[in-house]
Amino acid sequence: MSVSVVILAAGLGTRMKSNLAKVLHRAGGACLLEHVIRSARTIAEADRITAVIGHQADAVRQEVAHFGVQFQVQTEQKGTGHALRVCAGLPGLDQGRLVVLYGDCPLLSPATLQRLIAAHDAGGQSATVITTNLENPTGYGRILRDADGNVRAIVEEKAATADEKRVTEINSGIYCFEAADLWPHLARVEPNPASGEIYLTDLVELLRASGKATVPLVIEDPSEILGINTRVELAEVDRLFRNRKVRELMLSGVTIERPETVTIDHSVEIGQDTIIGSFAQLLGSTKIASQCQIGAMSILENAQIGEGAAVFPYSSIQDSTLGMGVQVGPYARMRMGAVVEDGAHVGNFVELKKTRLGAGSKAMHLAYLGDSTIGSKVNIGAGTITCNYDGQKKSPTLIGDGAFVGSNSTLVAPVEIGAGSYVAAGSVITKQVPQDALGIGRGRQENKEGWAKARREKKS
Amino acid sequence: MSVSVVILAAGLGTRMKSNLAKVLHRAGGACLLEHVIRSARTIAEADRITAVIGHQADAVRQEVAHFGVQFQVQTEQKGTGHALRVCAGLPGLDQGRLVVLYGDCPLLSPATLQRLIAAHDAGGQSATVITTNLENPTGYGRILRDADGNVRAIVEEKAATADEKRVTEINSGIYCFEAADLWPHLARVEPNPASGEIYLTDLVELLRASGKATVPLVIEDPSEILGINTRVELAEVDRLFRNRKVRELMLSGVTIERPETVTIDHSVEIGQDTIIGSFAQLLGSTKIASQCQIGAMSILENAQIGEGAAVFPYSSIQDSTLGMGVQVGPYARMRMGAVVEDGAHVGNFVELKKTRLGAGSKAMHLAYLGDSTIGSKVNIGAGTITCNYDGQKKSPTLIGDGAFVGSNSTLVAPVEIGAGSYVAAGSVITKQVPQDALGIGRGRQENKEGWAKARREKKS
Amino acid sequence: MSVSVVILAAGLGTRMKSNLAKVLHRAGGACLLEHVIRSARTIAEADRITAVIGHQADAVRQEVAHFGVQFQVQTEQKGTGHALRVCAGLPGLDQGRLVVLYGDCPLLSPATLQRLIAAHDAGGQSATVITTNLENPTGYGRILRDADGNVRAIVEEKAATADEKRVTEINSGIYCFEAADLWPHLARVEPNPASGEIYLTDLVELLRASGKATVPLVIEDPSEILGINTRVELAEVDRLFRNRKVRELMLSGVTIERPETVTIDHSVEIGQDTIIGSFAQLLGSTKIASQCQIGAMSILENAQIGEGAAVFPYSSIQDSTLGMGVQVGPYARMRMGAVVEDGAHVGNFVELKKTRLGAGSKAMHLAYLGDSTIGSKVNIGAGTITCNYDGQKKSPTLIGDGAFVGSNSTLVAPVEIGAGSYVAAGSVITKQVPQDALGIGRGRQENKEGWAKARREKKS
Repeated sequence: MSVSVVILAAGLGTRMKSNLAKVLHRAGGACLLEHVIRSARTIAEADRITAVIGHQADAVRQEVAHFGVQFQVQTEQKGTGHALRVCAGLPGLDQGRLVVLYGDCPLLSPATLQRLIAAHDAGGQSATVITTNLENPTGYGRILRDADGNVRAIVEEKAATADEKRVTEINSGIYCFEAADLWPHLARVEPNPASGEIYLTDLVELLRASGKATVPLVIEDPSEILGINTRVELAEVDRLFRNRKVRELMLSGVTIERPETVTIDHSVEIGQDTIIGSFAQLLGSTKIASQCQIGAMSILENAQIGEGAAVFPYSSIQDSTLGMGVQVGPYARMRMGAVVEDGAHVGNFVELKKTRLGAGSKAMHLAYLGDSTIGSKVNIGAGTITCNYDGQKKSPTLIGDGAFVGSNSTLVAPVEIGAGSYVAAGSVITKQVPQDALGIGRGRQENKEGWAKARREKKS
Repeated sequence: MSVSVVILAAGLGTRMKSNLAKVLHRAGGACLLEHVIRSARTIAEADRITAVIGHQADAVRQEVAHFGVQFQVQTEQKGTGHALRVCAGLPGLDQGRLVVLYGDCPLLSPATLQRLIAAHDAGGQSATVITTNLENPTGYGRILRDADGNVRAIVEEKAATADEKRVTEINSGIYCFEAADLWPHLARVEPNPASGEIYLTDLVELLRASGKATVPLVIEDPSEILGINTRVELAEVDRLFRNRKVRELMLSGVTIERPETVTIDHSVEIGQDTIIGSFAQLLGSTKIASQCQIGAMSILENAQIGEGAAVFPYSSIQDSTLGMGVQVGPYARMRMGAVVEDGAHVGNFVELKKTRLGAGSKAMHLAYLGDSTIGSKVNIGAGTITCNYDGQKKSPTLIGDGAFVGSNSTLVAPVEIGAGSYVAAGSVITKQVPQDALGIGRGRQENKEGWAKARREKKS
Repeated sequence: MSVSVVILAAGLGTRMKSNLAKVLHRAGGACLLEHVIRSARTIAEADRITAVIGHQADAVRQEVAHFGVQFQVQTEQKGTGHALRVCAGLPGLDQGRLVVLYGDCPLLSPATLQRLIAAHDAGGQSATVITTNLENPTGYGRILRDADGNVRAIVEEKAATADEKRVTEINSGIYCFEAADLWPHLARVEPNPASGEIYLTDLVELLRASGKATVPLVIEDPSEILGINTRVELAEVDRLFRNRKVRELMLSGVTIERPETVTIDHSVEIGQDTIIGSFAQLLGSTKIASQCQIGAMSILENAQIGEGAAVFPYSSIQDSTLGMGVQVGPYARMRMGAVVEDGAHVGNFVELKKTRLGAGSKAMHLAYLGDSTIGSKVNIGAGTITCNYDGQKKSPTLIGDGAFVGSNSTLVAPVEIGAGSYVAAGSVITKQVPQDALGIGRGRQENKEGWAKARREKKS
């Protein structure tokens, strides 16, 4: 029978000290809820996953919309049991197994979820709950077992006796339920007398009273089930995600210098024998081929990097593509769909925006190339600026194959520099330079003998 | 009765291998002595704090002058007791309680100082000494107690018997004395026969002989009392200061990526839901409002950042101010009182020095704007340079609201660009451009057909 | 009697998942084999060191050619014993002591090698083998000792009995042999029945059968002898090398901020009281004098830095030299033999390539200076570009002492700017500016009143 998942994600998270709903905080390159949905997707179809949202419901909905999961709004936050109840009666959730997860608990692995379902199916119980043992269980709900090893009750810290406080097995809150047993019993859970909230933990005793067992599944690694409550914990979870990805890449044949300093999103792919420099950040859908060098302190976001390419330090590449054997940087910036074709070079303090630089072309120093299409084997001199904006609209610059654009040129778009043509250094180019022509537009030099000396003498 | 503090800060610190006096070395964004003075100030007025200085006395005096503490020079370094003796007879130090601190021991917390005074007052003893227990006490002076638990003697490693060496309770050297008991006994301490120096530790036995008790106050965290002897220890103390600050900020509602890589001075303030990127350095009196983003690898020193502003990576902001919703970087530099008003944008490879950029204005690429006052909604084209220096003096540039400065323009200061005016790309502007006018100053383009082809053919 | 060394370096290293031979992977600023050769050189002359190479033999040979060691090619990799056999009969290896090392085991210290030889000489045995004790010895060959404490046999994990698996003393594979005993016995080692390979470990029993002892030398630090098998281990070894160097420098009087983030090659030298900022990378033959500041995130490779110089953050200096008191950066780049003479300043977004900047000269903003020789006390304005390439060849620029080059100037090389001369801002200079003259080459400014207003009104 199929699996449904309910993810409790309605809380604000007071200890985060934030205006942002807790599940929207980010770690490991994604918001917390996204990690939980990704894990949930390994055991259930998207239309069988329901996120119970509340604080900033619209923002949460939008952030994870692309996963196609269902949403249910809990307008008041009145406990875990209450949160689950808002899903009562949803189509498909009334039969089969129903797994309860938490939006602030992003490290739970797909493997553990598989184990949970397997343990549940094997035992035939009404409920299975993930537990773990902590050296210091203070503050957590304790698992009290009966003689058969099943869960007799889950007791919160506050309500625990001295003996119960010595129990080191704690409740994760993560369950697999038989839906058919869950709903009728959940309906009968009474609000906690002290807080007025409805707790999922009270369900265990009700099930037991009906002769239905809750079986614990003990896991070894507590980090998988501990939720995030503060930004200190957020940073720690981020570190665990980062380390996991970096280790995986190293074992698959990527050299990473100072791996503890590198930030690589889970979605990033890197080919064999590529070397990632220290402090690099590789984000989003970045894909790097083999035999590349990514320089220290570079930031790549949604970048495609061809085989054997070298990105020198301090470079920033966003939503852009580098071909095979390309060299860029240091201090180079590419953005908004820039394309650097095979073997082209981009040097220091050069920015490419919505610009294609053809194969084997070079722009080595202090240039701004925007909205431009540049052919192959073109030389862009130092200090060249494309004036793509006239205060009212953006216009394109076209530069043909083999053109040579002299240093400190100003190309006033829309403008075309013909193939094989030559732009004299320091020119302002406002109209087409024909193919193979020289375009020149600058003042002629004059010298005034003795002028500087006279000026010095006058001033002193 | 009031509290006086004497800080022993005269030593050179041979193991630092430095020409700089030890207390002038920096950790956690301040020199070591400054940290000690800050702690001391929580128990005593500035005019009741005396720093005993010696090596590089003038430099030390100057570095912490703004605290208004007193100085006493120890010209020869002849032991801790000798250092304290140079304060004998100073006004105010002859009565009440006198606390002895060390300039190379910067982690001692105000809380521990409060405890010291409270313990001293509660017990009514002549002296209270802070001690701690070390797993490996080798090298430290050991606390020998009498039957009442008071200190019988403090014995140095060298002089300790095998039994005494097994004592794990060590001397911090930090005392609270009854001034009235201190001075007459201190005057009677004999120089150590081996070294010829006068040790404060020998005071305990003299007090005891007069029937006066020294009571130990045991603290748990040894890092608070261990002095810095090498630069390895200096770096470790720096790390502790950094971690403390970063943790505090995270718990107050600031997201910090890779917190272990970030350097934030104690004086820095950051608003809620601001995100600090990895490797950022936030120094001095920097104040960042809420909802800001500070990009990875940025350095901010004495910067004021308005709400919702974004500083993109690799930016450097010194003694400058950004308004609300401002965006700067990547690779932007602001310094010497630059002001970027609300909603303005500064892009890559742009430097602002002593310049005001008005609300909603933009300078996006490769520009140098120095000594300039720029109005609102101004567009500064890529490659624009203000020539604020003529070899003899600096001059200002004024640009009116809504002006458009074309790319690669050269603005020769002193010069004024009128409101609503337009500077043609590539122009050299040497005199005023009136309001609403076009200013143009560049060569006219000429094309020479076939020139480039002919040149190629000639050369080959 | 003399020492020979054989370094086994023929393997590919499957778990590295690499096309690069394992010993060519880099850690601590050098390839693995280089570290081993450096250690070997402390006990043997270069011509007594033989590296047994195989995978990518030519590349390996080339990488370490400058050490002058011998090479022997093992065309098929058939075990450690087989690898050593390819050295049989080489001149000089048939007598004295022969030490066997591994190319993937770079942390073995010279001190341990000395101990190995001393222990071997003192005992008079046929073989000495380095061993260590591991808490978890799983996977390693175990040392089985006889009643005298000598090695009875070395048993691989696979072949070990349950009792033998409990032995925690493991084999490093590092030996000192009496050459005269080694060769005849090595010739008699049979291939392992399972793998068909010839193992050096089997030699122990053959020696023993001839009445010749193998004596273990137990070392404390396992990291010295554990080989690198994966890139995770490579990164770990890199970290150990880095920490060792950084610690050494701190103890010698260099302040290093955030030492765990800094990367310093073993060959780098730094003077006293120099401060190294966090995330700095100091590579190759870089030499930094005393009292310098190296800014955070700077990268120096083969750089020579004079006393009191300051390199501000994000600067990149390659194969270049800075004089005393020089200041460069932030975001400055020097390369290909650039020289910045005493007291000169280079500012942000400035690149120097094959250029000499004379004493006291300044180039503070957004400039490219290539193939230039610049005198002393020269001022290079913001945005100045030397056009050193005309599409066919590179040409030099000469600028005399005391010249002032106005901002946004374009200097078309080959060209000479005379001493004391003045280049007007925005000029294109194509021919010599004589000494003390004014060179000016730019369009004259014209204003068109009302033009911008009319344009706005037309468009709207």
